[in-house]
Amino acid sequence: MKNAWGKWGGADERGALNLIGAADVRGAAQLVRQGKPLSLAQQISPTMAVPKSRPGMMHFMNRDGGDYAAGRRRPGGFQVADDTVVMPLHAGTHIDALCHCWYDDTLYNGFAATEVKSNGAAKLGVDKLGPIAARGVLLDFVGLNGAPLHDGFAIGPQMLAAAIERAGLVLRQGDAVLLRTGWQERSQAGEAVNFDNEPGLDLDAALVLAEGGVALVGADNFAVEVLPFSEGTVFPVHQRLIRDYGIPLLEGLVLAPLAEEGLSEFLFVAAALPIRGATGSPLNPVAIL
Amino acid sequence: MKNAWGKWGGADERGALNLIGAADVRGAAQLVRQGKPLSLAQQISPTMAVPKSRPGMMHFMNRDGGDYAAGRRRPGGFQVADDTVVMPLHAGTHIDALCHCWYDDTLYNGFAATEVKSNGAAKLGVDKLGPIAARGVLLDFVGLNGAPLHDGFAIGPQMLAAAIERAGLVLRQGDAVLLRTGWQERSQAGEAVNFDNEPGLDLDAALVLAEGGVALVGADNFAVEVLPFSEGTVFPVHQRLIRDYGIPLLEGLVLAPLAEEGLSEFLFVAAALPIRGATGSPLNPVAIL
Amino acid sequence: MKNAWGKWGGADERGALNLIGAADVRGAAQLVRQGKPLSLAQQISPTMAVPKSRPGMMHFMNRDGGDYAAGRRRPGGFQVADDTVVMPLHAGTHIDALCHCWYDDTLYNGFAATEVKSNGAAKLGVDKLGPIAARGVLLDFVGLNGAPLHDGFAIGPQMLAAAIERAGLVLRQGDAVLLRTGWQERSQAGEAVNFDNEPGLDLDAALVLAEGGVALVGADNFAVEVLPFSEGTVFPVHQRLIRDYGIPLLEGLVLAPLAEEGLSEFLFVAAALPIRGATGSPLNPVAIL
Amino acid sequence: MKNAWGKWGGADERGALNLIGAADVRGAAQLVRQGKPLSLAQQISPTMAVPKSRPGMMHFMNRDGGDYAAGRRRPGGFQVADDTVVMPLHAGTHIDALCHCWYDDTLYNGFAATEVKSNGAAKLGVDKLGPIAARGVLLDFVGLNGAPLHDGFAIGPQMLAAAIERAGLVLRQGDAVLLRTGWQERSQAGEAVNFDNEPGLDLDAALVLAEGGVALVGADNFAVEVLPFSEGTVFPVHQRLIRDYGIPLLEGLVLAPLAEEGLSEFLFVAAALPIRGATGSPLNPVAIL
Repeated sequence: MKNAWGKWGGADERGALNLIGAADVRGAAQLVRQGKPLSLAQQISPTMAVPKSRPGMMHFMNRDGGDYAAGRRRPGGFQVADDTVVMPLHAGTHIDALCHCWYDDTLYNGFAATEVKSNGAAKLGVDKLGPIAARGVLLDFVGLNGAPLHDGFAIGPQMLAAAIERAGLVLRQGDAVLLRTGWQERSQAGEAVNFDNEPGLDLDAALVLAEGGVALVGADNFAVEVLPFSEGTVFPVHQRLIRDYGIPLLEGLVLAPLAEEGLSEFLFVAAALPIRGATGSPLNPVAIL
Repeated sequence: MKNAWGKWGGADERGALNLIGAADVRGAAQLVRQGKPLSLAQQISPTMAVPKSRPGMMHFMNRDGGDYAAGRRRPGGFQVADDTVVMPLHAGTHIDALCHCWYDDTLYNGFAATEVKSNGAAKLGVDKLGPIAARGVLLDFVGLNGAPLHDGFAIGPQMLAAAIERAGLVLRQGDAVLLRTGWQERSQAGEAVNFDNEPGLDLDAALVLAEGGVALVGADNFAVEVLPFSEGTVFPVHQRLIRDYGIPLLEGLVLAPLAEEGLSEFLFVAAALPIRGATGSPLNPVAIL
Repeated sequence: MKNAWGKWGGADERGALNLIGAADVRGAAQLVRQGKPLSLAQQISPTMAVPKSRPGMMHFMNRDGGDYAAGRRRPGGFQVADDTVVMPLHAGTHIDALCHCWYDDTLYNGFAATEVKSNGAAKLGVDKLGPIAARGVLLDFVGLNGAPLHDGFAIGPQMLAAAIERAGLVLRQGDAVLLRTGWQERSQAGEAVNFDNEPGLDLDAALVLAEGGVALVGADNFAVEVLPFSEGTVFPVHQRLIRDYGIPLLEGLVLAPLAEEGLSEFLFVAAALPIRGATGSPLNPVAIL
Repeated sequence: MKNAWGKWGGADERGALNLIGAADVRGAAQLVRQGKPLSLAQQISPTMAVPKSRPGMMHFMNRDGGDYAAGRRRPGGFQVADDTVVMPLHAGTHIDALCHCWYDDTLYNGFAATEVKSNGAAKLGVDKLGPIAARGVLLDFVGLNGAPLHDGFAIGPQMLAAAIERAGLVLRQGDAVLLRTGWQERSQAGEAVNFDNEPGLDLDAALVLAEGGVALVGADNFAVEVLPFSEGTVFPVHQRLIRDYGIPLLEGLVLAPLAEEGLSEFLFVAAALPIRGATGSPLNPVAIL
């Protein structure tokens, strides 16, 4: 099967992010016209939605205002609160690192899966990705469809092409492509999200993006790809994009406010927490309009 | 004492970040000439340096390549690794939210400290800051001094002025000012950092920045300000900048690589994890050159 | 209202456990006839039932057999696995310390609630209880009723008396009284437990036990007491037993296997993890038959 | 090499604990003469000593008295505090389960090490041990030596025999043998414990105990066995006792108060938290005198 292994050398750990050239970054910066940074991330809290197979996050205060109300001393007048989280790295808005998934015991670029042990990934950890600045492109399937896509809706190549046309631009190598399916928006309207059933890319459409040279693919759903999977397959888009093409995925984006701005392209900046050997990271991607 | 309370309304929770105008963001975007994003964050790992009074982070794999080596099944060929962290929010490269510290039982903008309870800060949480895009200004005290500043070295107003002059620019309202003291660089050379003794801003210099309208102050040390404190004071710069002026602090930045670029101004983008009611957040700030 | 404050001195932090005299322990040891220790605890795992308002536990392997399968070195031939848990202290089978709940801002024995801050309880922490050895008495309401009690069933003084009579003994000062309601057993049969609705003690029956001089009260349900509460009250049995009488509660016991043994009295041994200033602790109580 | 594999059947997961017969438990209960339970556990806290290679525990309050001081509502008058710990399972006073260590990729009783994956040990988890009641025997090397043993002191078979003789008894099959070396007591006197250098059993003495039919071996040091190891070996006593003989180890016991009682034998009760598939568990063992 086609893949991008070796394209940037046998030691490469950044995959398709290498496709973002300096000229692309400069061009993306020129898209800043309003001077308005917009967060594309969900709020993180113990009550955020997570799939049943994964625990939620916990947030603990090591010290807080209540301690002072209860009489804690304040040397030099100083009062302070601080806190600790227990956080699954694939919850909320997060990026999948290139060591997150694979098949045939081999990771992207031919690294052995045994590089990923209990102390983290010796290769392809999220800390290897580096910060991302690129042209962001919003493909608004909610706008195209006139409503959020329904659960289990598969976005195929034709619909992908229609959304690109509606965006009024041509995809270029190094783009960060963001897909608005409406999945999460429905939950914000009070409907419980279903992590086992969601609209998303089918494999053919995903390969169109990969072959087109996108640097990363993001979406407002949980898995970028459509769920449930076709018979006999499990996360086929993850397998091909992450492991074969070295394309990091951004999941759980908040895209409705961006869509309301009416712009299809913008400066996109995203930087994962550089956690050594982690398979992903929560992050707060920014569109600068 | 002077403060910025009420300046952006009694309900404001963003403080000095309000000083970054749309024109400032547009101007900062124009500084992108090389098309090169540069991370200003430390790697996060269980072995990163933390002060004795705070626990380090932990990184756990929920599933990894070893499980498959040990015979775990792979339905549909799919193999996956994921992970969880236990992470203090004020470790490594992080931002201090406006609820992080205070005095006289009152937070920035007059909010009661009792807003900060065991379930987080109902006011001024890090999730209220929003993403930051601004002109970044590097003040390189290592360059000015010819070597890293020694522990306990207090940067006063005169030295601050000298560093600004050396940078060849004038500070403007809404700037993100980053101070390179060299504290952390010494540790990267194998010397153990001392969290109780470090070079940093004195209160007078900090107030010059606050009165000058900076939007945020960052540094490559642990506390922005000089340690140990003057007799009878405890974190005086934190008290005044965060609580009185509403200026978030960025701590633990990695600035040597940026200094090597020889640029004093650049597009600066930083976005905290929007953790509801948190007093801070690890993050990966980016200078886009 | 009646209470046990001051009964064992103003500094006492062990409450009703003081009622267990040396002769009681010796007498309880004489009850060992079969030589058979029986665990009264639930298995602890990430899939154990917890109320919605509390997170479950997490279990992480720091190192495991998979790491060696993936090639980890084994100096001196030695191979090792170890692990870490994130554990709420009031999940599964656990004991409520005397600082766990209160009213009127005052804890058991008159200690101020402000003793319980973010760094734990300076008074009445679970580490102050000490190990417990006593006569255990099983009151089997499932046996009495011929079936598990239904959700919301309130055990009143009369039914309590009937169960004691059925047990064929007289309650003595210093007894550890264990109540089998059947709540949890139903869940083990596949029915989901309901943490908001369960059979348990009503306040009158609880006060009979308290006035009778029991050292601790345990049950196989989540709260010892009946849920939902009477109009206008919230955990009335907790308030009175823990705060007024200094009686620790044991919750989430597994009592069906003990009931099957057909013995009403036995040597009961329970020792909380001595976590400094904790409000409770998971533990594995043992009946030695 | 000699081992106990198959001795209790190929499916056995309790190892030498099977050696404790019902008559042994009954006999142990007869040793209760004072009616006094004594904890043999260290206090657990974030400041407890842990080896450098392992993180300490963390203790977080989910709610506390400070919250009420800061104005939290109290429905029905009820006020409550609860908490969560992050706890390494081999810290403080803890038991090593039979899946904790091994060699040649094979665990006790021939189970494959690949049974121990990221989701825990499918075989030989600490939850398989069951509660322990046995005759406890204190071997007081501090008493024998007239002072705590010095770091690196190896207890050999001859010294073991001397301590048994001093105890005035004969070891019997099914005994729980507890060794007081004094290592930890020195730290309680303000001296920092050294986890890399401690007095403990040498391999020959350990094998004497194993062949003598002890059910478990406990000690007041960190590893039961002497550190540093003999050239070319790594935890040889762990390898042989746990993996070959199926003998759980109890580490970090507090034995000075027990020694002060002047009794060599007593009813010993210990029950690990039944954490599914865990390699160990903190616990609070009790000597009942």
